[in-house]
Amino acid sequence: MGDPAGVGAEIICRSLAELRPEQRGRFIVFGDRALMDRADTLVRSELRFSDVPERDSVWPTVIDIQPKAPGTVQDGKMSAAAGARSYAYIARAVSAALAGDIDVIVTAPINKEALHAAGYPFEGHTELLAHLTNANSSFMLLASDKLSTIHVSTHVSLAGAVTRATTERELATIRVGHAHLKRMGIADPRIAVAGLNPHSGESGLFGRDEIERIHPAIDAARQEGINVTGPIPGDTVFYRAVRGEFDLVVAQYHDQGHIPAKLIAFDTTVNVTLGLPILRVSVDHGTAFDIAWKGIARHENMNTTIQYAGRLAAAKDA
Amino acid sequence: MGDPAGVGAEIICRSLAELRPEQRGRFIVFGDRALMDRADTLVRSELRFSDVPERDSVWPTVIDIQPKAPGTVQDGKMSAAAGARSYAYIARAVSAALAGDIDVIVTAPINKEALHAAGYPFEGHTELLAHLTNANSSFMLLASDKLSTIHVSTHVSLAGAVTRATTERELATIRVGHAHLKRMGIADPRIAVAGLNPHSGESGLFGRDEIERIHPAIDAARQEGINVTGPIPGDTVFYRAVRGEFDLVVAQYHDQGHIPAKLIAFDTTVNVTLGLPILRVSVDHGTAFDIAWKGIARHENMNTTIQYAGRLAAAKDA
Repeated sequence: MGDPAGVGAEIICRSLAELRPEQRGRFIVFGDRALMDRADTLVRSELRFSDVPERDSVWPTVIDIQPKAPGTVQDGKMSAAAGARSYAYIARAVSAALAGDIDVIVTAPINKEALHAAGYPFEGHTELLAHLTNANSSFMLLASDKLSTIHVSTHVSLAGAVTRATTERELATIRVGHAHLKRMGIADPRIAVAGLNPHSGESGLFGRDEIERIHPAIDAARQEGINVTGPIPGDTVFYRAVRGEFDLVVAQYHDQGHIPAKLIAFDTTVNVTLGLPILRVSVDHGTAFDIAWKGIARHENMNTTIQYAGRLAAAKDA
Repeated sequence: MGDPAGVGAEIICRSLAELRPEQRGRFIVFGDRALMDRADTLVRSELRFSDVPERDSVWPTVIDIQPKAPGTVQDGKMSAAAGARSYAYIARAVSAALAGDIDVIVTAPINKEALHAAGYPFEGHTELLAHLTNANSSFMLLASDKLSTIHVSTHVSLAGAVTRATTERELATIRVGHAHLKRMGIADPRIAVAGLNPHSGESGLFGRDEIERIHPAIDAARQEGINVTGPIPGDTVFYRAVRGEFDLVVAQYHDQGHIPAKLIAFDTTVNVTLGLPILRVSVDHGTAFDIAWKGIARHENMNTTIQYAGRLAAAKDA
């Protein structure tokens, strides 16, 4: 459900209401039942929630989670109370996913400050999920109809991103992206790797990372039979991918992938976490405290996220 | 004219042919007369070139430059011979600009390898111009109807870009961008500065460059009366600028500005060099050796570049 003070509950209600009944019945919301009922009334989604998942139900389930955490949650306000609840919802969902009770977690936005205030010092949602699943590393993939891009690094300074672009991490990122696209039904995904430096280093003139660290990873991936090319300078590779030349771009750092993704598909980009023992897809926006609980938050991105999760679950079943 | 083995001559002919006669007569091509005649025939532009600029002429001038450089130029081939000629054309144009004989230089593409092979070890066209004009520094601005962005650094490794983002350089970049937009007719330009690190450093969690170096520059610029805001995370600032919120974005490094510019205005982005004692606008593509001298190169970008140069010249006159 995301941060209870944010837009999560209301966009979930709006999106679930637009699903066909047989789809809708497969959803379980990990959150607060009273708030979900309130959101349902607010946005007039006319849902009826079950307390436990029922076979062949046409209504979603809400698992009511009430952690022993001090304080109260106020609409649109950052608080430790809301952070503690966000954490509890996620922890329960992860347990269910690890147990095999759910196929894919769809996450609504949480607030990092609230999480920190509640005593959970994670750099972000994804880092929290990695912790809860004992994963050593994870990969962020942004996906839309126009562009898919997976990141070598994300929540680290730009200087730190340069040092994290090791051959090992480059190769791991290519492999994870390749496996994901194959799972999503692309038989032989065409992958391009972006250069780290301008002009991909211009043959070493503006940095040797491409020569010493990125090229060897691409060569190794090719030897494994992966259809991968590059490094291609950042300012042309995304343009070429958007025009249909590649199925996936390996971005070297957070902004290199996020700038094109947000620019060309602001409302329809979803955030997929790969490399964890569970599958997770997230909306690509924040808690929007300024408009939360006013019934005006837009749910297009949640719709796209739910659709992507459905495709992932279907691929898992196949 | 750019590299004589590249597409320069033919796209110049095509673009000049589309100008109104009174505009066309104001252009001087610094290059090779025989090649310009050949390009004119190739693309059927039906131009007549003067040997010297004439008052009220309706035809462009071609200054024929034949440097004492060994070797011959072959269509579409990188060579020291072509690099030496590229250099000579630029050097003569810069002399004319410094003497006040021309208002703005429009550059067609050159090839860096050819330049190096001819013994001119510059990192790029702009660095060569800085050398020829004894300028200590310059600034690259990419401009289109949809987005204008000026760069704190360009042709340097990503690690080098981080260290070049000093308060002094940030402030200088803001000032130069502000002065340029005012000259172009925007009374009170709205400028946004992009963050260097993801999420603009997330309050220091992913890098302290914003806190220690970028914020002080923005504060200083504001005290000078410049309408500047930021730092705003890279993945939202370009999106907001494209939607009309800002007239100019200060990009922290090459790819941060070039990725959005190329993605949203690939054919209509021009490259403006600021901070030199002369004005220069360049096409934003390369020599395209693979299609050169076949009469098939597209000249839309040259058209846009010439139009921008015309606006710059008019602003200078005003």
